[in-house]
Amino acid sequence: MSNKLAPSIRLSFPLMALVFQVAIIGLFAGFVDYKAITEGKFSITYPVFQDVNAVVVIGFGFLLTFLKRYAHSGLAFNLFLAALAVQWATFLEGALLDTLQEGIQISLKSIIRAELNAVSAVISIGAVVGVMSPIQLLLMVALELTCFVVDQWFLKSWLSIDPDTSVMHLHLFGAFFGLTASRVLYRSGLCNGHEKEGSLPISELFSMIGTIFLWMFWPSFNSALLDTRLQRSRAVFNTYYALAACSVSVFAVSTLVHNKGKIDMANIRNATLSGGVAIGLSAPLIDSPYIAMIVGFTAGVISTLGVVYLKRCLETRMKLHDTCGVLYTHGLPGIIGGIVYVVLIFLTSPVPNKSLNYEGSPINKAVAIIVTLSASLVTGLIAGQCVNWHLQRERI
Amino acid sequence: MSNKLAPSIRLSFPLMALVFQVAIIGLFAGFVDYKAITEGKFSITYPVFQDVNAVVVIGFGFLLTFLKRYAHSGLAFNLFLAALAVQWATFLEGALLDTLQEGIQISLKSIIRAELNAVSAVISIGAVVGVMSPIQLLLMVALELTCFVVDQWFLKSWLSIDPDTSVMHLHLFGAFFGLTASRVLYRSGLCNGHEKEGSLPISELFSMIGTIFLWMFWPSFNSALLDTRLQRSRAVFNTYYALAACSVSVFAVSTLVHNKGKIDMANIRNATLSGGVAIGLSAPLIDSPYIAMIVGFTAGVISTLGVVYLKRCLETRMKLHDTCGVLYTHGLPGIIGGIVYVVLIFLTSPVPNKSLNYEGSPINKAVAIIVTLSASLVTGLIAGQCVNWHLQRERI
Amino acid sequence: MSNKLAPSIRLSFPLMALVFQVAIIGLFAGFVDYKAITEGKFSITYPVFQDVNAVVVIGFGFLLTFLKRYAHSGLAFNLFLAALAVQWATFLEGALLDTLQEGIQISLKSIIRAELNAVSAVISIGAVVGVMSPIQLLLMVALELTCFVVDQWFLKSWLSIDPDTSVMHLHLFGAFFGLTASRVLYRSGLCNGHEKEGSLPISELFSMIGTIFLWMFWPSFNSALLDTRLQRSRAVFNTYYALAACSVSVFAVSTLVHNKGKIDMANIRNATLSGGVAIGLSAPLIDSPYIAMIVGFTAGVISTLGVVYLKRCLETRMKLHDTCGVLYTHGLPGIIGGIVYVVLIFLTSPVPNKSLNYEGSPINKAVAIIVTLSASLVTGLIAGQCVNWHLQRERI
Repeated sequence: MSNKLAPSIRLSFPLMALVFQVAIIGLFAGFVDYKAITEGKFSITYPVFQDVNAVVVIGFGFLLTFLKRYAHSGLAFNLFLAALAVQWATFLEGALLDTLQEGIQISLKSIIRAELNAVSAVISIGAVVGVMSPIQLLLMVALELTCFVVDQWFLKSWLSIDPDTSVMHLHLFGAFFGLTASRVLYRSGLCNGHEKEGSLPISELFSMIGTIFLWMFWPSFNSALLDTRLQRSRAVFNTYYALAACSVSVFAVSTLVHNKGKIDMANIRNATLSGGVAIGLSAPLIDSPYIAMIVGFTAGVISTLGVVYLKRCLETRMKLHDTCGVLYTHGLPGIIGGIVYVVLIFLTSPVPNKSLNYEGSPINKAVAIIVTLSASLVTGLIAGQCVNWHLQRERI
Repeated sequence: MSNKLAPSIRLSFPLMALVFQVAIIGLFAGFVDYKAITEGKFSITYPVFQDVNAVVVIGFGFLLTFLKRYAHSGLAFNLFLAALAVQWATFLEGALLDTLQEGIQISLKSIIRAELNAVSAVISIGAVVGVMSPIQLLLMVALELTCFVVDQWFLKSWLSIDPDTSVMHLHLFGAFFGLTASRVLYRSGLCNGHEKEGSLPISELFSMIGTIFLWMFWPSFNSALLDTRLQRSRAVFNTYYALAACSVSVFAVSTLVHNKGKIDMANIRNATLSGGVAIGLSAPLIDSPYIAMIVGFTAGVISTLGVVYLKRCLETRMKLHDTCGVLYTHGLPGIIGGIVYVVLIFLTSPVPNKSLNYEGSPINKAVAIIVTLSASLVTGLIAGQCVNWHLQRERI
Repeated sequence: MSNKLAPSIRLSFPLMALVFQVAIIGLFAGFVDYKAITEGKFSITYPVFQDVNAVVVIGFGFLLTFLKRYAHSGLAFNLFLAALAVQWATFLEGALLDTLQEGIQISLKSIIRAELNAVSAVISIGAVVGVMSPIQLLLMVALELTCFVVDQWFLKSWLSIDPDTSVMHLHLFGAFFGLTASRVLYRSGLCNGHEKEGSLPISELFSMIGTIFLWMFWPSFNSALLDTRLQRSRAVFNTYYALAACSVSVFAVSTLVHNKGKIDMANIRNATLSGGVAIGLSAPLIDSPYIAMIVGFTAGVISTLGVVYLKRCLETRMKLHDTCGVLYTHGLPGIIGGIVYVVLIFLTSPVPNKSLNYEGSPINKAVAIIVTLSASLVTGLIAGQCVNWHLQRERI
């Protein structure tokens, strides 16, 4: 994405991408097939798979188009990185999280889980797009996916957390991994691209394609891995009403704090989804819509106020650059969602302290969220240093 | 959407939105839950729900982007008002139309019905966008939904019309409610925004996103509430072929009457959907595609000629402002659809005059359409006066 | 699409469209109905039908918007021609390929097949858009569909190829029919519109809507007509991983050969889908993802190199004008797909030489591909002459 590239850098990105792709094909040839397909729910799962697919390539892709300079490359890079990430995640998941003995068997559900993992990487891209070079983005995505799947493997092995639950930590992991990596790069004086990050009215409209697709497919996203009809319907209904209440609160707060009483499209883009993110973990548990609506409403208020008052402060004082505002779309709502989830499972679990079976232990689930958050900060720091070091070596 | 707002007006919109949202959450806390979920058809209904969702937020949202001045706010307001409308409609429907005793139980079908109700409000917005202020739009949507659900309750109680049928009067109700409200506002000298309503080539392209999504998801829209496989497949097939024949007639007539033989995008935007609207009520009844194709073809011709010859005349002589041309997309095709439906049920019902069971009486169904049309005109007039009065009070 | 039209030409397009539409309604009235609907898989097939619908009207429609001069008319014409093509294909298929005795019965699957046939016409439009006048496009689409359905009828009657398989030759047929027709028109000095074919950054973004929708719905497209769960899931998985590997190779090769190491959006637009096209025929047969990934990867490399090195050469030396680059998106990948398919069926078929039952004979399947390719070249030549002759007669 930079204008002048030395031949060595110019060639290193495509060659690295080709090597990575060929290596993945090799790994797939050795370990992955779908000979054991017996999926009974294929027809039921297929529309959900398509919706999650739309979230990844349309939703997050067009969300990046609001940058007037990076509209095209942002959209194109999202497709490229998502395509690579899904393949890499398929392999990692199969290698670390699958319980089958006979190689890695692909099913529709495993592809959906690979896409959810890829979303964590796509979220991080939102924090650093325009700051990282293509090769840095590629490295970061590969590192992040590996760290996130290892995190899920750790949570499964040590805290008996089902990977279908821990993969929903993706907002926390993606946002804080990306923000930490962005913070590391800030120090190295890379952020000379800020003036390129303005948006045009027309690019705002393109980015609304992303926002609206995410909004629309979010009920599918939050219910994609749930097995029973009860859980799926609850997750869909709660996400739907949380998003509706959130949208209203975002509009109201956004016009309330705007000095001319107008709508700021940046608030809509960053905050409208926050209700759906905040309800993510607890959506299958809640059986009354008003709770989801309160969560969505609160997330909308906090996220909008964050964009309005926190963004500039973080950039100037904490030297934290956040191109797409992933802190407000995924970070803060992810924390709200974690708190809501922990409160809910402690309230609904009858005797939390004595439940020694790990599977259902509320304490384990609370610890898991803290582990993921810590892991995202630590691995984001390390990944930031890696890609930073890579660039400096390239410069020599 | 106006440029200069007194502080009292500036604050009144967000505060009213917040109060409305909090009140709805309160109502939901008191009356609504989904504890009784037993939905057997969840997986079958879910893709249809997503399609209807797409109609509401993508289709109608992007349709509003053709206005160069209101592209962003139109799209954003559509999302905000739809989010509010669906919540309000969920409650109203549950309170007035549900037959269950134990509170309001949400199901996927009740959300779809709430979205169809919300579409009637979204259609009205198309008639007045750019003329009404945000707070007026908010008031109008709340009033309209209430009136439309009361209309369905009346038709159910007095004429034994199934709400799943009467909600399909939404085109008639939405178009004529919005047009009447627009007519009331015209008199008060509010229409100083006409010159802002021009379209740009680029905003026309955005609005085509809306047109094409509506076109594509219209078979789902027309079949969303039908229960049997026979009815659903007929509705899908008839809508599909009606839309296809309609698209061809719109193109042909549009180039025929254009003085340079070119395509006028405004005709495409306004008329391409008319075939799908006109077939809406009768789609589950017809068992031969050529009837649907004739209806679609005719609706396309009438709607295109309406846009070309009627629009200017109505604006100058009848002082009727219709920003998005809802008369041609929903109003006229709604009337055609009503006539086709009445003719069809009289033709297919064996002894119409003697059928004393209300459920299937063709006379009742014909009367119902007239009742809805009258209700839309009367309540639109009252709502127009209300939002007009509200503004005048604000000005003091 | 031309600026100055004589009245006779100006009227001939809409009148021809109206006559064609009325004739189709007449044919439907005589022969087509859906009285025999017994479709057991309606709910399962419906989401797939919607995805294919999206491919036709959104995917291919927005793909045409990259032309700055034809963005609107390209999108609108795609809708018009697709609407007409689907109706005509429904009739042709029913008349030639259906085995039922009692008239033409429409089912969801027959509409999907009609849409796949329409896609072959839509692909050809990509080769000649901006060169042909509306009436020429209309003529070409009608001729092409007829030829393609007759080709499938021939393959069914003489080589026992199931039309559900032979319709997947659509990429080969569509691309080479369109290219041959384009070649014929080139000679007649019609190609004065080249300078209008530039793209703008903003129209590139609109065209990415098309690219991404095609990418996303391609697994549905390749699996739309398959009956068993095993075949469908294999087709979905193989298409998905082929597209992923293809996207990576396109990005890598595109930046590798770009003299500034940047991404060329034209390559993304033309080549990203090639992996999905190349895997089309063999997708239901492959049971290990790495084979699909190798096919996708190779198609991506060849297609990108084709756009970069072959396009200019073909235009200047072979006088072959290809507006949207259908040779690289559908033609070359279609040939790769044909070769892969033939190799696979010869490898997997136990005793190919002795298999005398036509149904499963690998030789027949290989011959079928050659027949389709030859038919597309011959009929494209004839169709090009017809529309050329039509124009010359008009000029007199």
